[in-house]
Amino acid sequence: MSSVAEKKQSRRRVVVVGGGFGGLKAVAALRKAEVDLTLVDRRNHHLFQPLLYQVATAALSPAQIAQPIRAILKRQRNVDVVLDEVTGIDTTARQVLTRSGPIAYDDLILATGASHAYFGHDHWQEAAPGLKSLDDATALRRRILNAFEQAELSEDAAERQALLTFCVVGGGPTGVEMAGAIAELAHRTLVHEFRRIDTRIARVILIEAGPRILAAMPASLSAKAQQGLERLGVTVRVNTAVTDCTQTSVQVGAERIDCRTIVWAAGVRASPVGSWLGANVALDRAGRVKVNPDLSVPGLPGVYVIGDAAAVNMAGGKPVPGVAPAAKQQGRYVAGLISRQVRGQSAPPPFAYVDQGNLATVGRGEAVVDLGWLKLSGLPAWLFWGLIHVFFLIDFRNRITVSLDWIWSFVTDGRSARLITEGERKQP
Amino acid sequence: MSSVAEKKQSRRRVVVVGGGFGGLKAVAALRKAEVDLTLVDRRNHHLFQPLLYQVATAALSPAQIAQPIRAILKRQRNVDVVLDEVTGIDTTARQVLTRSGPIAYDDLILATGASHAYFGHDHWQEAAPGLKSLDDATALRRRILNAFEQAELSEDAAERQALLTFCVVGGGPTGVEMAGAIAELAHRTLVHEFRRIDTRIARVILIEAGPRILAAMPASLSAKAQQGLERLGVTVRVNTAVTDCTQTSVQVGAERIDCRTIVWAAGVRASPVGSWLGANVALDRAGRVKVNPDLSVPGLPGVYVIGDAAAVNMAGGKPVPGVAPAAKQQGRYVAGLISRQVRGQSAPPPFAYVDQGNLATVGRGEAVVDLGWLKLSGLPAWLFWGLIHVFFLIDFRNRITVSLDWIWSFVTDGRSARLITEGERKQP
Repeated sequence: MSSVAEKKQSRRRVVVVGGGFGGLKAVAALRKAEVDLTLVDRRNHHLFQPLLYQVATAALSPAQIAQPIRAILKRQRNVDVVLDEVTGIDTTARQVLTRSGPIAYDDLILATGASHAYFGHDHWQEAAPGLKSLDDATALRRRILNAFEQAELSEDAAERQALLTFCVVGGGPTGVEMAGAIAELAHRTLVHEFRRIDTRIARVILIEAGPRILAAMPASLSAKAQQGLERLGVTVRVNTAVTDCTQTSVQVGAERIDCRTIVWAAGVRASPVGSWLGANVALDRAGRVKVNPDLSVPGLPGVYVIGDAAAVNMAGGKPVPGVAPAAKQQGRYVAGLISRQVRGQSAPPPFAYVDQGNLATVGRGEAVVDLGWLKLSGLPAWLFWGLIHVFFLIDFRNRITVSLDWIWSFVTDGRSARLITEGERKQP
Repeated sequence: MSSVAEKKQSRRRVVVVGGGFGGLKAVAALRKAEVDLTLVDRRNHHLFQPLLYQVATAALSPAQIAQPIRAILKRQRNVDVVLDEVTGIDTTARQVLTRSGPIAYDDLILATGASHAYFGHDHWQEAAPGLKSLDDATALRRRILNAFEQAELSEDAAERQALLTFCVVGGGPTGVEMAGAIAELAHRTLVHEFRRIDTRIARVILIEAGPRILAAMPASLSAKAQQGLERLGVTVRVNTAVTDCTQTSVQVGAERIDCRTIVWAAGVRASPVGSWLGANVALDRAGRVKVNPDLSVPGLPGVYVIGDAAAVNMAGGKPVPGVAPAAKQQGRYVAGLISRQVRGQSAPPPFAYVDQGNLATVGRGEAVVDLGWLKLSGLPAWLFWGLIHVFFLIDFRNRITVSLDWIWSFVTDGRSARLITEGERKQP
């Protein structure tokens, strides 16, 4: 026993914080390395975030886009999964501090992702929740479905119209997808289910501060997406800055839009990695850690930040975008770097991001895809989008059930997860 | 318009409270009757309660065993669905009182089901939650999965054993199914996923006050079920009364069992129908309304109680059991009675319960079935049980995805819905 323990002690200890796309990829890529891995996450599941909006709009169930981290890593024997909350990092003692005690590391990979940014208006959060976790998604689902139920019960026409007004703030992929999905819910799925209201009077307003939606895409695809949304009945308002959010309205300039549901899809802010690492570490405006070209933190050898929590530039000087493929590539890169060190090999060249393209779905049979060499819109783009997403869903069973649910709702206009749970129906 | 309104006014108004098996069957059976129906429920979904334990033990997702009531009744034009909480009944003015206002009725069908009974120890509820709603099930799922996670983090052997001790109180079908499913989770699904604990040391204890489990079944099948549970590693303790439940233990006589998870499956208590109807209405010990042979409430013409909220005897004098088929039969009976009245036909003969048999599942490939003329156990019983349950699941899509999930877990020992959500990980 003792020789095994000693042998274990002599192995390099790599701690990964965060079981998202980046962290999980780093762990998987260290599968064959002679290291002792620990993956710490405060949630027990890996989340396929790109489909979170489908949970929020009742098309998919939480379990269909999430997998227990332990189950994913069941067969990888060199990793220990810890379900715990990180409270800080002691970079001198080289320990990750958690609620149940410290975890020592030789190398540390921080992959903690991002949360919503309200640009100095954190009090908007309650009125305008964002979409990052399963809990966010089920809370939003409850809010959206309850708005229809309350409208059905309301005797007041103005109140009814406010209940049936949905504002989505932010015209990036999440905002576009949410707006499209809410419009489909109101104008297709729920039609004929209510007796007193006509759900088709529901208004869905997508508000974007910049000059066009999907700013990361070519202008032609932004225009296609906007047309697609408008066909679904979404009102797209560009060059429109939100100046206040309350439980009953969104303020845009001098105009007040009465609404009961606001979805915040406007900005991200890196998780508290910056504060964990101390005042000497430089952050960008979104709270991301400015890392070296090899993704290590300046001044803290053996500490790496990847994914949405890291700020690093591409060769041209543009920042690497906060998307799943970037996080995965960075996870793989750092894992490779550590593996080379363990084997005594030379350092790899700096991290280089490979842009695999951009895609966003608008609604049933409607998406936009930009692969650089290929631009698609409409049904071909939507089929491509579906294929890609199903392919990347982590396990085989989920691929089948998600495909089935999509085929089902394509055929019937139904949505499979329209549950209001937790009795939290007391809204203003 | 006015003639339509007058015509509508002259139609009989039937209000159904509760969208469970009984209420939904009553509504469906009044599909062609010349009545105006209103179905009131405080939840937006019909729940397939017999499979709730599978949500609590992470085998199925909530959406797989629940369907929006509006979606179920979409094509039935004579029914208005109201999502609201009933606060009382004014039997003089003939109105159901809800949070958003009164609903007038000519006939009233109360199908509000039952909740847990703690036999005068309501303070046990927090330590020993029961299983009636989706929220109960996801809360229990969180508690069970967290127990394993906390055991993995614990340094203390006694604490670890207590975390891995699961007590199920009550040896009816729900208790048997919960005990079997937790044992499978610990002894099969989670094995190899933890690095520090061996989940096979988990103890599952099924505690029954009576002389045998599944008392409604023939003794031979009770014995088979007990053997099946014991093969799965469940400790079955009959003739054992629980005298106290706390957050850290169950007291049985002089013995204290240290445990962190208690599941209450010992008793049901009718929902507050009794108190709504006033002091003149007779209730049995479980709070059920003692109804006439035609399921109407004595002294309240046009008011009917069905399902778990009603106390009515079979021809032999034994009470009609609180099971889904009984609720459905009663819903159909009262609907028929009202239809006959509307058409001016004579009253039907008193309600007669047709016993379709009893069944309970123990674990993978193991169940007991008693149809009177046929008794099954083991794999044949389990296949029969699966067939029946899939067949009765409300819609076609759910049948497919549930079947897939069952086949999947049969083949892999996996469970598809192992999510700990809502961050509520702060347990003692």
